[in-house]
Amino acid sequence: MFGARCLLRALRSCSSAPCPRQRPAARVSVRGALGVQSANGERVKVQGWIRSIRSQKEVLFLHVNDGSSLESLQVVADSSFDSRELAFGSSVEVQGQLVKSPSKKQNVELKAEKIEVVGSCDAKAFPFKYKERHPLEYLRQYPHLRCRTNVLGSVLRVRSEATAAIHSFFKDSGFVHIHTPVITSNDCEGAGELFQVEPSSKIKVPEENFFNIPVFLTVSGQLHLEVMSGAFTQVFTFGPTFRAENSQSRRHLAEFYMVEAEISFLESLQDLMQVMESLFKTTAMTVLSNCPKDVELCHKFLAPGQKKDRLEHMLKNNFLIISYTEAVEILKQASQNFTFTPEWGADLHTEHEKYLVKHCGDIPVFVINYPLVLKPFYMRDNEDGPQHTVAAVDLLVPGVGELFGGSLREERYHLLEQRLARLGLTEAYQWYLDLRRFGSVPHGGFGMGFERYLQCILGIDNIKDVIPFPRFTHSCLL
Amino acid sequence: MFGARCLLRALRSCSSAPCPRQRPAARVSVRGALGVQSANGERVKVQGWIRSIRSQKEVLFLHVNDGSSLESLQVVADSSFDSRELAFGSSVEVQGQLVKSPSKKQNVELKAEKIEVVGSCDAKAFPFKYKERHPLEYLRQYPHLRCRTNVLGSVLRVRSEATAAIHSFFKDSGFVHIHTPVITSNDCEGAGELFQVEPSSKIKVPEENFFNIPVFLTVSGQLHLEVMSGAFTQVFTFGPTFRAENSQSRRHLAEFYMVEAEISFLESLQDLMQVMESLFKTTAMTVLSNCPKDVELCHKFLAPGQKKDRLEHMLKNNFLIISYTEAVEILKQASQNFTFTPEWGADLHTEHEKYLVKHCGDIPVFVINYPLVLKPFYMRDNEDGPQHTVAAVDLLVPGVGELFGGSLREERYHLLEQRLARLGLTEAYQWYLDLRRFGSVPHGGFGMGFERYLQCILGIDNIKDVIPFPRFTHSCLL
Repeated sequence: MFGARCLLRALRSCSSAPCPRQRPAARVSVRGALGVQSANGERVKVQGWIRSIRSQKEVLFLHVNDGSSLESLQVVADSSFDSRELAFGSSVEVQGQLVKSPSKKQNVELKAEKIEVVGSCDAKAFPFKYKERHPLEYLRQYPHLRCRTNVLGSVLRVRSEATAAIHSFFKDSGFVHIHTPVITSNDCEGAGELFQVEPSSKIKVPEENFFNIPVFLTVSGQLHLEVMSGAFTQVFTFGPTFRAENSQSRRHLAEFYMVEAEISFLESLQDLMQVMESLFKTTAMTVLSNCPKDVELCHKFLAPGQKKDRLEHMLKNNFLIISYTEAVEILKQASQNFTFTPEWGADLHTEHEKYLVKHCGDIPVFVINYPLVLKPFYMRDNEDGPQHTVAAVDLLVPGVGELFGGSLREERYHLLEQRLARLGLTEAYQWYLDLRRFGSVPHGGFGMGFERYLQCILGIDNIKDVIPFPRFTHSCLL
Repeated sequence: MFGARCLLRALRSCSSAPCPRQRPAARVSVRGALGVQSANGERVKVQGWIRSIRSQKEVLFLHVNDGSSLESLQVVADSSFDSRELAFGSSVEVQGQLVKSPSKKQNVELKAEKIEVVGSCDAKAFPFKYKERHPLEYLRQYPHLRCRTNVLGSVLRVRSEATAAIHSFFKDSGFVHIHTPVITSNDCEGAGELFQVEPSSKIKVPEENFFNIPVFLTVSGQLHLEVMSGAFTQVFTFGPTFRAENSQSRRHLAEFYMVEAEISFLESLQDLMQVMESLFKTTAMTVLSNCPKDVELCHKFLAPGQKKDRLEHMLKNNFLIISYTEAVEILKQASQNFTFTPEWGADLHTEHEKYLVKHCGDIPVFVINYPLVLKPFYMRDNEDGPQHTVAAVDLLVPGVGELFGGSLREERYHLLEQRLARLGLTEAYQWYLDLRRFGSVPHGGFGMGFERYLQCILGIDNIKDVIPFPRFTHSCLL
């Protein structure tokens, strides 16, 4: 059961002692088998799916993959093992001896003593064909099978590694992990396009609303994290968030994952940006170190050469910082014609973000200090003028545009109260004001779109290809 | 910013070299400060909230807590520092020297050179009073503040540690982490009480349904995990799940977290139970080792003595295994009168689960092989008789009852097809049948209720006290 560790221990004890022929073969993962440094005839059992099969004179070559790595294990068998059921997509259990491979393509191969077809594969009906490379759009039609292809396998292994790396990053830095709620009666941004939640019509509840009040799917865990940063100083969450946006864009989903952090006693955007940059780089380096082949496949498959250089370029340079006001000046001086004319006080659009990143030599760039009128009530007033700004920060990256958004939060009771009053929100946010009445502290935080992060480091064009089961307008398969 | 590690490094370099008086004090967390083994006058800065204040002759004692640990740091100051604002709940920044404490209660204390009140606390309005122990029911009314109490602080730190331990357990065992979707068009159990999701009424979408079909909040990631186990062999998910149950029980929430795993090439309940037991014990031991004081507080605060013994008892014994049929026999022979008469073919109720655990000497017990008629279509048929069962397993634990549920899945195409046809579900689950057409493998998996797990190891009676923001009928605060 317990994969590589126990089994390699079993292998080791087997190879150091005389190994009786009858000893049951130790089960080992493909990754475990490929990791054996000097194979010497250890008897093992490997289980997985056939990725390729080739008959050559008296010898049969199979490649067996179990998803533990991109690489498959080469199985070499006598042609007497050949059978109709031993085909692309079938599941097999192979017992045999791990030996050094004569080929340069792999270190190790498995000399089969026994091959059992566990489940055959109906090749005619199977939507993926042997040796064919199917476009990502085609694979999307088969959400229950596409994870069996090389490219989706690599993307989802990277996703899993990145998830673990993000948890480690925060744990190592002393953050407490918080599960912020999915169902909420808040609307954090005041402007998000929300999904509403109600018990399905079949259920009888005495009151009209299950929760007595209208409730929605969360658009951000920020306000709940602010609660927690008032107790634990440094907190983070990593969970699903939702937007009912009617969008078919390559950068939007109705359900996506956000990594959010909130830090008490933090007084400058500079300190906040340091955490953001560190999260970006530490996670990418862990992924590169733990699954280099998977990253390489994405870079090769999707845009040969260029994307890998882009990632290295981002990792080795310090991210840049410009103010919103500088950004608008840069855009105004651009020779390019924009659909939306750049102007102080107007939002930056995707075309602007892309231009700014290019202008910065494809290095990620922080844009700071946005106009107060553009941003939500909780962002800290810079009390400047005449161009009135708040201490907000967005990180723009190549290929994707906005990846992080963050700010210092308004911790001053009276300033916050005034802004809430102007919006008619004082009553609804009394609890939020409370956080400033009882031991308020300067603090700030950010959110990072996890799928966009994966798009950015892997160079994947469409967000639907970096999440196991994408949900977007008109589509909720399975 | 980066807590203990960097700062302790700074401290170390400071204590080994002559330390000029002007050198800026290194910021250190309370946990970091308390962890300094032989304090020797290192200059540090600590930020947090005042948990207690005591004036004694010429000396002022403060206890400052920043949520990095249950213990607070004792600050010793000249009484000239005293001020009205220096009160319970205020946030402060203290600079001074870390010295060995003369008291036996702590190793280290902070001799204050400078104390700054960052944010005062309106004591009259603050719902928690100095030196008072408030009941958990009372704290629940203040979801935005209760995390600042000792007991909720400890519970949520344990929750964070347990989350990390679960991720590590699976990663170390070679599992791939999968984000299964929250919004789904499936109804896994066929019987769950579902929440339906729709765009809020303010949004205009051309079609009647945003997703074209009715969609719901997930009740389990199992079916999606089965898809993934067909590519990665061993997979897990850890995310929110939902039930629109009209229940005020101490064991149910409308939104709760589940840890689910799915394992391919797994052929026996025995192997599955081994993973379940190992997950339970490894996680508990990691928590006990990383935050013993937090666990101790829960055990002491909530049921002195008894609960800690119960946890140790569970950890040192092998979990027991009985069949459903044996369980019914045990219940029938019980001297106790049950509200629901135990009978073969009927569900086990909470009263039965509690009796069985007690009968087993308060050791967790696996109940296996339930009647086919009680269980969903995907569980593997044992093809026995006349009492027809499936390869299902529940783990019952002291105090909580059912903690895990799992099964082998029906991997045989024709058996599964027949059961789906009988339920009229063949069309809806064509994709699920596909998994058995293309390289099917024997497999199994389980789900564990994360809140119930925390209740079990901490001895906490009400599930609402182990989640940051509980959602249940008639209640969705914040």
